[in-house]
Amino acid sequence: MSHRRYNPLLDEWVIVSTNRLQRPWQGAQEASSNAASTNGVASQTQTKNPLAPGGQRANGTVTPNYTNTYVFPNDFPIFCSDKDAPKSEVKTDEEDENDGLFYKETSYGTNRVICYHPDSKKAIVNLSVEEIQLVVKEFMRQVTELKLEHDWVQIFENKGQMVGCSNPHPHCQLWASKYLPNGPATKNRTQKNYYEKHGKVMLLEYLNKELKKKERIVVTNQYWTVLVPYWAYWPYEVMVLPNRHILRLDEITEEESLALSDIIKKLLIKYDNVFKCEFPYTMGWLGAPTGKYLNEDCSHWMLHAVYYPPLVRSATVKKFMGGYEMVCESQRDFVPELAAEILRNQPDVHYLDEGE
Amino acid sequence: MSHRRYNPLLDEWVIVSTNRLQRPWQGAQEASSNAASTNGVASQTQTKNPLAPGGQRANGTVTPNYTNTYVFPNDFPIFCSDKDAPKSEVKTDEEDENDGLFYKETSYGTNRVICYHPDSKKAIVNLSVEEIQLVVKEFMRQVTELKLEHDWVQIFENKGQMVGCSNPHPHCQLWASKYLPNGPATKNRTQKNYYEKHGKVMLLEYLNKELKKKERIVVTNQYWTVLVPYWAYWPYEVMVLPNRHILRLDEITEEESLALSDIIKKLLIKYDNVFKCEFPYTMGWLGAPTGKYLNEDCSHWMLHAVYYPPLVRSATVKKFMGGYEMVCESQRDFVPELAAEILRNQPDVHYLDEGE
Ligand SMILES: O=P(O)(O)O[C@H]1O[C@H](CO)[C@@H](O)[C@H](O)[C@H]1O
Ligand SMILES: O=P(O)(O)O[C@H]1O[C@H](CO)[C@@H](O)[C@H](O)[C@H]1O
Repeated sequence: MSHRRYNPLLDEWVIVSTNRLQRPWQGAQEASSNAASTNGVASQTQTKNPLAPGGQRANGTVTPNYTNTYVFPNDFPIFCSDKDAPKSEVKTDEEDENDGLFYKETSYGTNRVICYHPDSKKAIVNLSVEEIQLVVKEFMRQVTELKLEHDWVQIFENKGQMVGCSNPHPHCQLWASKYLPNGPATKNRTQKNYYEKHGKVMLLEYLNKELKKKERIVVTNQYWTVLVPYWAYWPYEVMVLPNRHILRLDEITEEESLALSDIIKKLLIKYDNVFKCEFPYTMGWLGAPTGKYLNEDCSHWMLHAVYYPPLVRSATVKKFMGGYEMVCESQRDFVPELAAEILRNQPDVHYLDEGE
Repeated sequence: MSHRRYNPLLDEWVIVSTNRLQRPWQGAQEASSNAASTNGVASQTQTKNPLAPGGQRANGTVTPNYTNTYVFPNDFPIFCSDKDAPKSEVKTDEEDENDGLFYKETSYGTNRVICYHPDSKKAIVNLSVEEIQLVVKEFMRQVTELKLEHDWVQIFENKGQMVGCSNPHPHCQLWASKYLPNGPATKNRTQKNYYEKHGKVMLLEYLNKELKKKERIVVTNQYWTVLVPYWAYWPYEVMVLPNRHILRLDEITEEESLALSDIIKKLLIKYDNVFKCEFPYTMGWLGAPTGKYLNEDCSHWMLHAVYYPPLVRSATVKKFMGGYEMVCESQRDFVPELAAEILRNQPDVHYLDEGE
C-alpha cells in the first residue's frame, strides 16, 4: 500500500509508492558511468503514444480523438484510491512508542494526467494563446472538482527529459492528496506567520516592492507578473504572480485567464530563446489549501506558479543539485538579477519563427 | 560578493556565489532537448588533470607529486574568505523594514578540494582499505584544523557525472562556513527536541532498533553499521552510523577508522555490483556543529554519513526529483526494505574482479 513515512531527522515526509517501477519509461537514458555510449534519447518502439488520440493506455483503454485538453486517471497511481480508505484513519507508529522513528500513514488521493493538446509534437510554447487558455481553464475545472475532497491539489509539469519527463506528449500531472504535503505545509506556515506579524499578504507585499524595484521583473501585463525571486535557486527560476490578491486557481476571471495564457507563452518563448533549444523546466501551481482548509481563513495565501529550469551554461550543461545542496544548503552560481536581465532582454519572437 | 539570501516562503537560505560559472567543466553534457546527439561524455582537451600530480590549476599552481591524499584551496571558492570579514557583521535587509523579504548576509568560509589518491583513473572503491583509511584520517585532520573557526565543516563528494561531478579525478570537497546551513540547522533542532523529550540520542536509539529489526541493515561490523533509513528518499540511499555515540569525525579511534574504511569499501563494492557500473552517488558527513557550538552541549548529536545514489532502474535510468518532489514532497518508487535486501545480497567481490 502506498504510504508516507516520517523523517524525524528532517521533520518532513516521504511518499513510498510501490507500483511505480512498472510504468513505461520513454524518458532519459543517461550515458552509463562506465562510459557505454548512448545518445540520451530513448528508443521509441511504440507506434502510437498512449497520451495521443488513438493510443492505447497501460490498462487497455484507447485514448479518444480529443481536440483540445484531455484528462484521465494515472495508470500508475502514486496514492491509494479514496475508495479503499477506512472511515477513520489513524497514523501508526510501528513500535507504538510514539517516538516518531517508525512513523507512517496511508496516503490517499487522486492522480491524473492532463494532456494539453492532441499533437504529440507540440509543446505548450507552440500552442496559440487561445489554446493555452483552454489548458488554464482545465486547471481551474480540476481544482473546482477536486477541492472539496482533497486538502491539496497539485498541478505540475515536468517538461523535457532532463527533468524526468517520462513521456514526450505535451501534458502535465495532477496529484491531489487528503493531506497537506511538506512544501505547501511550510508555505502555509510562513505566509500565515507573516500575515499575523505584519497584517499584510506576504507575496502581494513582495510583488508590489518588486514592481517598484524593477530589476527582477521579467515580463508583466495588466493582470500578471513574471519575476525572478530575490531568493531564486535554479539559474532561470521564475515565479508567476497575479497582480491582485487571488487565493486559488478557480478564482481567476475570464480576462485574467487570457492574460495568464499570454504571459505564459511570452515566458516560454523567452526560455527557448536563451539557449535556442526546447528549454526544460519543472512547473507547479500553488494556491491556498483546500478540503478541510476551506473552512479556515486562508487570506494569508497568494496563488503563485513556480518554474524551475535546470539549464545553466548552455543547452546541454545543467545545474546539478550536488552533495552540498542535498545535505546543507542550495547554492547558485550567478545572481538572480542577471538571470532576470537575460530573460527580460530575450526577444518575444521564438527563435524558430524568426524571419517569418 | 558571495552571500546568502533568505527565502521567506520556505524559511530557508540560498547561497549566491558569483564566480562559479568560470570554473572548468569536465562534467556531464546532456543531449540537447532539441535532440542534438552527444554521448554524454565531455571532451577532454587537457593533457593533465589539474587534480593529478603535475597538473596545473586555474591559478597557475602546479600540483605536486603527492602519494596519498592532497588538499588544496578551491580555485573557484563559494564563500568569501575570512580575511575579508569585517570585525562585526550585521545581517542586512535591503529595505530596512525588517520584514525578511529582501534579507541577506555575507557568507564567509573556507572551500577546499580533497584528492583521495594521485591516480585519476581510480575511484575510492578501487583503493585498498589502508588507502581509504588515509582518506578518513584526512577528513579527521581537516575537521580538527577547521572546527575552531567554523560553525559547520561540510565534507561531501559528488561521485560521477550524473550527480554533477565536474572533474573525474577521485576527490571530494570541503565547504566550511561561519554559520550553520539549512540542513544541519534542521538536524540540530530535531535531534535536540528528541533528546529533550525522550532523554535519548535519536540516532543511537534508532540504530539500536534497526539492529534488532534487521530488515533495513545492509552491512555491519564491530564499530559501524550501514542501513537504508526507514524514511529513505533516493532509491538506494544509505546512512552510515557508528555503533557507539560519537559526535564528530575527529573522535574516531584508530581501530574505528580502519573498520570504517572497510565498511565503506564493502558498501561501494555492493553499489557497483547492483547495476554492474560505476555507481554514482552524492555523499556527505554530518557531525555536531563546531565553532561557537563547541561551547554548547551537543550530546543530542550523532555523527552520520549519508549516501544518495540516483540510479533506480538500471545503470542508465535514474530517479528524477521532478516537479512534485520540488514543490510538494519527496516520492520514492519502491520500499526501502527492498533496497536494503538488494544491497545486502550483493556479493562482496567487485563485479570486475570476479574470477580473479
Ligand atoms: O564544485 P563543483 O564540483 O564543480 O560543482 C558540483 O558541486 C557543487 C556542490 O554540491 C554543486 O553546486 C554543483 O552544481 C556541482 O556541479
Ligand atoms: O510520473 P512520471 O511523469 O512518469 O514521473 C516523473 O514525475 C514524478 C513526479 O515529479 C517523479 O517522481 C519521477 O521521478 C519523474 O520521472
